[in-house]
Amino acid sequence: MSDIIDALQERFGEKAVLTAHQIAERATGYWNSSPMTAKALLRPKTTAEVSAILKICHAHDQSVFTHGGLTSCVQGTKTGENDVIISLERMNSVVEVDTTSGTATLEAGVVLEQAQKAIAEQGLYLPLDLGARGSCTIGGNIATNAGGINVIRYGMARSLVLGLEAVLADGTILSSMNKMLKNNSGFDLKQLFIGTEGTLGIVTRAVVKLQPQQTTKNTALAALPDFNSVHILLNHMKNTVGASLSAFEMMEGDYFRAVTEPGWHRPPMERDYPYYILFECDGSDPQRDDERFSEVIEDAFEKGYIQDAVIPKSENERQALWGIRDDFEAILQPKSVYLYDVSLPILSMACYIQDVKNKLALFLPASKVFVLGHVGDGNLHFFVQPHSETPAAREFSDRGIYEPLKAYEGAVSAEHGIGFEKKKWLSQSRSAEEIALMRLLKATLDPKGILNPDLVIDQPKKQ
Amino acid sequence: MSDIIDALQERFGEKAVLTAHQIAERATGYWNSSPMTAKALLRPKTTAEVSAILKICHAHDQSVFTHGGLTSCVQGTKTGENDVIISLERMNSVVEVDTTSGTATLEAGVVLEQAQKAIAEQGLYLPLDLGARGSCTIGGNIATNAGGINVIRYGMARSLVLGLEAVLADGTILSSMNKMLKNNSGFDLKQLFIGTEGTLGIVTRAVVKLQPQQTTKNTALAALPDFNSVHILLNHMKNTVGASLSAFEMMEGDYFRAVTEPGWHRPPMERDYPYYILFECDGSDPQRDDERFSEVIEDAFEKGYIQDAVIPKSENERQALWGIRDDFEAILQPKSVYLYDVSLPILSMACYIQDVKNKLALFLPASKVFVLGHVGDGNLHFFVQPHSETPAAREFSDRGIYEPLKAYEGAVSAEHGIGFEKKKWLSQSRSAEEIALMRLLKATLDPKGILNPDLVIDQPKKQ
Repeated sequence: MSDIIDALQERFGEKAVLTAHQIAERATGYWNSSPMTAKALLRPKTTAEVSAILKICHAHDQSVFTHGGLTSCVQGTKTGENDVIISLERMNSVVEVDTTSGTATLEAGVVLEQAQKAIAEQGLYLPLDLGARGSCTIGGNIATNAGGINVIRYGMARSLVLGLEAVLADGTILSSMNKMLKNNSGFDLKQLFIGTEGTLGIVTRAVVKLQPQQTTKNTALAALPDFNSVHILLNHMKNTVGASLSAFEMMEGDYFRAVTEPGWHRPPMERDYPYYILFECDGSDPQRDDERFSEVIEDAFEKGYIQDAVIPKSENERQALWGIRDDFEAILQPKSVYLYDVSLPILSMACYIQDVKNKLALFLPASKVFVLGHVGDGNLHFFVQPHSETPAAREFSDRGIYEPLKAYEGAVSAEHGIGFEKKKWLSQSRSAEEIALMRLLKATLDPKGILNPDLVIDQPKKQ
Repeated sequence: MSDIIDALQERFGEKAVLTAHQIAERATGYWNSSPMTAKALLRPKTTAEVSAILKICHAHDQSVFTHGGLTSCVQGTKTGENDVIISLERMNSVVEVDTTSGTATLEAGVVLEQAQKAIAEQGLYLPLDLGARGSCTIGGNIATNAGGINVIRYGMARSLVLGLEAVLADGTILSSMNKMLKNNSGFDLKQLFIGTEGTLGIVTRAVVKLQPQQTTKNTALAALPDFNSVHILLNHMKNTVGASLSAFEMMEGDYFRAVTEPGWHRPPMERDYPYYILFECDGSDPQRDDERFSEVIEDAFEKGYIQDAVIPKSENERQALWGIRDDFEAILQPKSVYLYDVSLPILSMACYIQDVKNKLALFLPASKVFVLGHVGDGNLHFFVQPHSETPAAREFSDRGIYEPLKAYEGAVSAEHGIGFEKKKWLSQSRSAEEIALMRLLKATLDPKGILNPDLVIDQPKKQ
């Protein structure tokens, strides 16, 4: 046992410190089933305990990685045998749902879906939602500035955070549990901890802004003839039902066909269209909202923006449509798949997608590419199925996705973050000056470099 | 002439450098008519010129203050005879309105109203709006994270900024003119320059997110019996027309009566109610929006939330209602007035306002207090008319406003920022740890302390 483990066990008791053997029973993450590796894993119950752990680790120059729900898509939860892990899994209380101010106070380890439910029970709505809702935690959502399916209406995780508490590398607690929409009392320090993937501090609690529950939901799946129509339909929706438009999700024909193969999802319409859009409006005026939604779709038909549309007649039918978008087991199943998350201006998307396909056809001749995305947010996901999985195939696939992106002023990460996986591509989207400033911030807030070291940006080794 | 002026004149030509004599022809700001004081004022045309000026100032350890539209309410534009001013007034181009991505690219010196108009001409809408629109600049709006009247629907300036370009104290240009809603490619560095009042860098250009133009506007002025009804009405509106609610402005009876005295605004209803709320919904469906708005107001009447209401029958009548909210000349006119801007949870407001009035009655017996605010955002403005203006009166007035705030976890600045004026009160809203981190950031990004020195936080003098 090392000094650090002794010090931690002395402070927290033997039971509170999971050792390498116990840790190995856990998987590294949702996307990586190999056993977790670390020197120790601690499960603090309070912010004060997080602070105490960090003080000890700081004194010992001990690297510390933060674990939330382990759903990172960018190797954000990878650790080594010399690292200590802090898991927020026991800081999982919904501290308060304040219906008067329209806020919720949450501990970082609350699973997103639990928070959604607790808030819904109080008659309010947490607009953050993403596929990993059943596992991911609020702390992880904030640390990675999570996006998801409601961004077009409600923004990213950053825009929902009113107050935040975080612990710095040396154990200093920064608590600013603000509940107001407006607070310009000095620098807005919470921004330092949102989207920085735990490299500048560990998020322990947050106040999030809630919305009224919407009582109507109108959904449609539409088939479109070309990408230009996608863009025109998006503007049509924005100009008519913009305030209530909560999702606008694109699936390319190849994606739609793959997930509606026999044995997978039942196809709700013809399978041979080039593009499919799943969109949804939430409102609070049943009769008028329904009428308006129908009008807007009829208008889109008449103007030729869409060629076919399905409107679900029940919640089951609606869920089935969303299943096509959310459940892509058919693509994951047959063999290994590389998942990508990029953003770029919508008008460049058609060209960019073609560029990627051309590159992949060249680099990885027998590969398949499936494209879908939160197109209203400028966000595309790619699934690349290489013919055979090799390090070289991965490298070629990465190049196929990222190299064409720079010309379109796109971002190598839209919502998944950088983690370890995308570090080498960061310079496609960020200038040398920007990366230098990221390093400077890291060196300033964590001069020993103990906090999630080498995530997002490489840093000098510990002093 | 000092070395620095020589160096600046050599680089930019004599004409480009206004000297102390010329500068004195300008007023310090909208709220301070005393002559501007400085060693020199430079009016760069490009980001490269801002960078060049800062490089020279940095080499000479020269303090530099940034000027936008000079509408600061917190002495944010005050300079001394040894300072250099950079005014962004000639960087005033609307570079691009991109109707496909729904963004505008603006130089920092663009006057807000000019930006609003240029964007409206392209059929889109810039949701940032505030009383100072005719003078304030986009750069100033971003540097101070401006709020205003549309925050309840669209958020603060921070939430509108997608991309930003800023120049650091040493002249380094950080350019990240992102147009996407989602971009998690490393730390979101633009947050460092939003709301930090020019202390960490000078904002030179920005990409802002636009909204569809709304085609319907429904407005009402309602009279309410007590503060509890204000809160209930707000929730009633959020739960019914929440997605389209773009303003919810409160005026206390005393404020309403003062600005509708004979000779000022014509009172549109009885003047003896305790509270008045001006609210507005913007939509895109003329008939249904009007019907729904009427329904919601009738419902509020029936439920007793409101006692009287006026719905304007023309744009002129609507403007007249907004005049009562926006134009408080009647209060500014008679004698000097102290203006305050704070935020706190809405449920605490009634108690807090009473606390303030009690304190002021004690400290400043013959003073008058007028309260209004963006109550939907938790934001209150106070006008305090002291019986006679003395430094002691100002001190007592400040204490009356700020001292009770801490107990309610309020913020000493909601939307005006800290400037020089509120520095001594910052610790009411921020912990020692937070202020220490603000200082650390300042020392890291501007180690010589040349950039808007001593704004927001005191700093060690130049090295």
